[in-house]
Amino acid sequence: MAAKKVNEDLQRERSKCSFDVEELTNFLDWGPQYTKRRRTLEQKVLSVKGLLDDIPEEYLSHKEKYENAVRKAVLLYRTLQKVDNSNISDEEKTRANFRNMISSAVFRDGTPFTLHFSMFTPTIMGQATEEQKAYWLKRANNMEIIGTYAQTELGHGTFIRGLETRATYDLETEEFILHSPTLSSYKWWPGGLAHTSNYCVVMARLFIRGKSYGIQPFMVQIRDEKTHMPLPGIKLGEIGAKLGFNNVNNGFLGFENHRIPRDRMLMKNAQVLKDGTFIAATNSKLTYGTMVYVRVLIVNNMANLLARAVTIVVRYSAVRRQSQPKPNEPEPQILDYITQQHKLFITIATSHAFYINAMWLWEIYFSVNKDLAAGKLENLPELHAIACCLKPICTSDTTMLIERCRLACGGHGYMLASNLPQMYGLATAACTYEGENTVLLLQAARALVKAWSVRAEGKPLKGTMAYLAGTTTLQKWDSSVDSIVKSFQVVAIRKVSGAVETLKDYQKSGLSQEDAWNKASVYLTAASEAHGRAILLSVYKSEMDKRTASLSPSLKKVLHQLVELYVIYWALEKVSDLLLYTSITEKDITELQRRYIDLLEKIRPNAVGLVDAFDFRDEILNSALGAYDGRAYERLMEEAMKSPLNVEPVNETFHKYLKPFMLGKL
Amino acid sequence: MAAKKVNEDLQRERSKCSFDVEELTNFLDWGPQYTKRRRTLEQKVLSVKGLLDDIPEEYLSHKEKYENAVRKAVLLYRTLQKVDNSNISDEEKTRANFRNMISSAVFRDGTPFTLHFSMFTPTIMGQATEEQKAYWLKRANNMEIIGTYAQTELGHGTFIRGLETRATYDLETEEFILHSPTLSSYKWWPGGLAHTSNYCVVMARLFIRGKSYGIQPFMVQIRDEKTHMPLPGIKLGEIGAKLGFNNVNNGFLGFENHRIPRDRMLMKNAQVLKDGTFIAATNSKLTYGTMVYVRVLIVNNMANLLARAVTIVVRYSAVRRQSQPKPNEPEPQILDYITQQHKLFITIATSHAFYINAMWLWEIYFSVNKDLAAGKLENLPELHAIACCLKPICTSDTTMLIERCRLACGGHGYMLASNLPQMYGLATAACTYEGENTVLLLQAARALVKAWSVRAEGKPLKGTMAYLAGTTTLQKWDSSVDSIVKSFQVVAIRKVSGAVETLKDYQKSGLSQEDAWNKASVYLTAASEAHGRAILLSVYKSEMDKRTASLSPSLKKVLHQLVELYVIYWALEKVSDLLLYTSITEKDITELQRRYIDLLEKIRPNAVGLVDAFDFRDEILNSALGAYDGRAYERLMEEAMKSPLNVEPVNETFHKYLKPFMLGKL
Repeated sequence: MAAKKVNEDLQRERSKCSFDVEELTNFLDWGPQYTKRRRTLEQKVLSVKGLLDDIPEEYLSHKEKYENAVRKAVLLYRTLQKVDNSNISDEEKTRANFRNMISSAVFRDGTPFTLHFSMFTPTIMGQATEEQKAYWLKRANNMEIIGTYAQTELGHGTFIRGLETRATYDLETEEFILHSPTLSSYKWWPGGLAHTSNYCVVMARLFIRGKSYGIQPFMVQIRDEKTHMPLPGIKLGEIGAKLGFNNVNNGFLGFENHRIPRDRMLMKNAQVLKDGTFIAATNSKLTYGTMVYVRVLIVNNMANLLARAVTIVVRYSAVRRQSQPKPNEPEPQILDYITQQHKLFITIATSHAFYINAMWLWEIYFSVNKDLAAGKLENLPELHAIACCLKPICTSDTTMLIERCRLACGGHGYMLASNLPQMYGLATAACTYEGENTVLLLQAARALVKAWSVRAEGKPLKGTMAYLAGTTTLQKWDSSVDSIVKSFQVVAIRKVSGAVETLKDYQKSGLSQEDAWNKASVYLTAASEAHGRAILLSVYKSEMDKRTASLSPSLKKVLHQLVELYVIYWALEKVSDLLLYTSITEKDITELQRRYIDLLEKIRPNAVGLVDAFDFRDEILNSALGAYDGRAYERLMEEAMKSPLNVEPVNETFHKYLKPFMLGKL
Repeated sequence: MAAKKVNEDLQRERSKCSFDVEELTNFLDWGPQYTKRRRTLEQKVLSVKGLLDDIPEEYLSHKEKYENAVRKAVLLYRTLQKVDNSNISDEEKTRANFRNMISSAVFRDGTPFTLHFSMFTPTIMGQATEEQKAYWLKRANNMEIIGTYAQTELGHGTFIRGLETRATYDLETEEFILHSPTLSSYKWWPGGLAHTSNYCVVMARLFIRGKSYGIQPFMVQIRDEKTHMPLPGIKLGEIGAKLGFNNVNNGFLGFENHRIPRDRMLMKNAQVLKDGTFIAATNSKLTYGTMVYVRVLIVNNMANLLARAVTIVVRYSAVRRQSQPKPNEPEPQILDYITQQHKLFITIATSHAFYINAMWLWEIYFSVNKDLAAGKLENLPELHAIACCLKPICTSDTTMLIERCRLACGGHGYMLASNLPQMYGLATAACTYEGENTVLLLQAARALVKAWSVRAEGKPLKGTMAYLAGTTTLQKWDSSVDSIVKSFQVVAIRKVSGAVETLKDYQKSGLSQEDAWNKASVYLTAASEAHGRAILLSVYKSEMDKRTASLSPSLKKVLHQLVELYVIYWALEKVSDLLLYTSITEKDITELQRRYIDLLEKIRPNAVGLVDAFDFRDEILNSALGAYDGRAYERLMEEAMKSPLNVEPVNETFHKYLKPFMLGKL
């Protein structure tokens, strides 16, 4: 973090900070040992030559981006292998890496190896037999093969039962025949599939003797290991340029009666015997665990994205001066404008809220996972419902807030050199992948409607749904943080009951159950959102109370200001719900509004300290606007000078087109 | 629009449409004569070879994008010159071009000539003397020179008084010395500035005998006409890659004591005589006219962007089938999901609302312009206030809705082949350019606070502000469209009064006027938004009533369903305001919600007809998902096959990196 000359405004901000920045960094890292580990890793990796780009990715052609990304991906993997040789458990390693964003320094727009680590290897672990694991996991872990995971098809997304790719068992040869019967059945989207991977887990509909046995996973070699040529009967290519993730090499895959041996079906759960006997999986809910795991990681990733974005924007807002409200005074730092604080400080608080929720979810995930190993499945549906609410809320809030941060930088936020547009691209993609947000909210709604009938039967509800058994009216409104948090539970209860009511009304009017569900779906998604918000708020508040107990008073104070800000912000955002379902009055609202503005003023002196505490190295921020030294304009110019268009003073199109055009000859 | 084989689902949708699509097209075009003119132009221009890309822009490098754009820009200009030789007035021509989007077919990401037409020529018209016009306008109109307009600087945006570029008058040589005293004074952002333009209007601070005379416009030659080399004392380059507009060649410009003759200052308004005498402009408000003009065009552009986006998404939603709510029935068209209708139909209605508001604003602009010519300035401030509210609301709503449309396409909306991400890039930029949205809302708030004091004095308010003199409470709530529209006026009145109240409270608490303004700014922007929404809604409703009088009953019915949808949608979005400031009850709200859902169902059968009526040719939609024939999957695959990465089955990085890596040798 050493810098030659730090911008004076930033320096002054830092001198005003009322708490120990390092203490907050350790808190966010989940302990000082993790801060130390992360920094050591960053220092070692980021000093390796060739990992950071001389010419920013955005100046390259689509093809060059991919080629550059492969070069860097290989180098990054080998580097990490060398330097990250600590002997800690997988669980601790995952947690230790919660705030490891090294790859953001290397790639602004993803890497072609992502799916190998995030989906290919985990699928082998979760779905392969011990024997299969012994072979495939070793090869995958050693990177002797590069794999990906192919589920979605050109015509089929979140709805897995709709997949068309066929795997027909041939009893005579004991092989599966993979086939894509239509264009819409082509696999479409998997990262690394286009030109990078030579193996792939393919989800396909199993047929034995003409009968369908559902969607099953198959390990398929797609390219020759020596020549990398697609194997016969396999059609491969890339799907084209996207809003983001352009280094990821997303591909398509079609089969023309391609045969694979029987043992390539991953048979930990369901099995096909040599004679074509099908043995079903004992429990279909076991795969929920992985889904929840991925969604915890998404919540944590969103916290990281928000933290990076707001670091950039707060520092820039401390450096940028604009307008002149008072004659004869200099232009103020834009961070002094309340409208700017309104855009930024909630982003800091949201990042904290998501970090804390991710930590909490992680611990629940671990305890449920232990239950699973012991054969206890009863807590899975509730956990699944939380994940189905939190993933959509966290991804869409993050998308909205990053965009707000970007717009708060004015025109310069539109520059790719700010790295904010790219972060937006990464965030908004998360609204679609791993379960489309609206679809997930509707899934969560099923669990909530079910919970409501449990309540109606007078039975108890458990865990995060326990509150749904509570009162439907809040006693007297009281503007304390705890009371507001409670009021969000009342709102959720009322939204759930309202959705159930609507559902019933539509059914009574003669609609089928399915049509009534569809017609009520706007209410149902609203109920899920309310449930998710209630959880987010209450976990943020209660976990913060618990986890900050041993912190210094000065830090504790600031962290609780952010909790209060977050809670009041959402109370004001959802004030219509509070007006409908609690006894809040116009006067209470006015008071909350004033308190919100006062909180912005209280947080203002610590704003730079708060983002410094996220402790992102300049390489990881990867932004001309947000570097530690605050030299935003100098860096913008330095980045501009890297544009290949700036190498020559006159572009050749002048002679070819513009000159003859201006002379009237073209 | 002829297509070989139209998707059957789309064909069925079209056969269900209850109104005459052509009648609606004519209505949106402002008359059948404009539809005819537009179609003829489109047909002629789009059949010219070389204008449409073989390889989509997104596969090119940053440099190649520019070079390709210059080639096309020259060709497009010459083509338009040949085919668009109609003899109509400038006013009618502008109106005739309201729905001309030919350039969207040629460029997905802007053109380097934009600023020449949108800013350079208009500035000469508005700010040059007759003598200057005779010379410069002729050259600019003939494209003997290519120009741009340089106002913003690296360190200075919307706040014009902060500009640092200096133009010092040298009495001895009768020249201006242009100079950039700091890095932050470098001009930054102007389109076409980097490598395209050879002339530029530069806004700089005038100094005569050491005294400052404010910001003035100067015509500056920046490149040699023969060699295109930057002139001595002029530093030029491009600012780098951006979220969008990457064909636009945005540039930077710095001066090192660069001298220009005295007659290069554009002196229609202020003047500098040979002896250094400064003659101030007679009225500083005259430039307001141009600003309003540009903002009318922006509202219209937003309507066009929304129309294009929703055409794509509605057609795709008719073709895409997903999930299986009812066993043994086929997967439904996703357009049948209420959640999808909730995302899309409001976008159709919003596009109509913005078109109608743009038409209305255009007519006001013309009448105010006539007043101006006659020396009557009294209506300018009110018009300026409307434009300051509508521009931010229309651009931010458009950005939000395009993104919602894009997300409603799932993963495929993330593909650049859908053209939705690029449209998002174009829309969100409009939140920043031509006056940053928050800054504009605060400007409008000044006018509203002033209006409130007029009201307090018991004096009448005029035009679009007249309603602010009205009652602060709505009689009994009544859910008719007219009554809801009126309730938005009450909300605006209350928000204005609340903001004024807050402002006073903060002043009473001891804050200076400026600090109180800042502290109240969140309320002030909310007041401006409320004012803008009240206008948008009431103009949409009343103008639609008026303009549809002579339409066929079947079309009128559908158009009014959209008005109703729009009004109820916003009532539900702003229900907290209605709860606070009107007598609406929970029961009323429930009824509005049900009515909203029923409206979605009523609009559903006409959805495809409604977007067909926008009448965009496939070339103009420029999207694999939205073509008239509905062959979305086929086109996605066709577009993917254009990727240069798909030319070879094995990318060279396999041999260079992946193979040695997998063999453990790298």
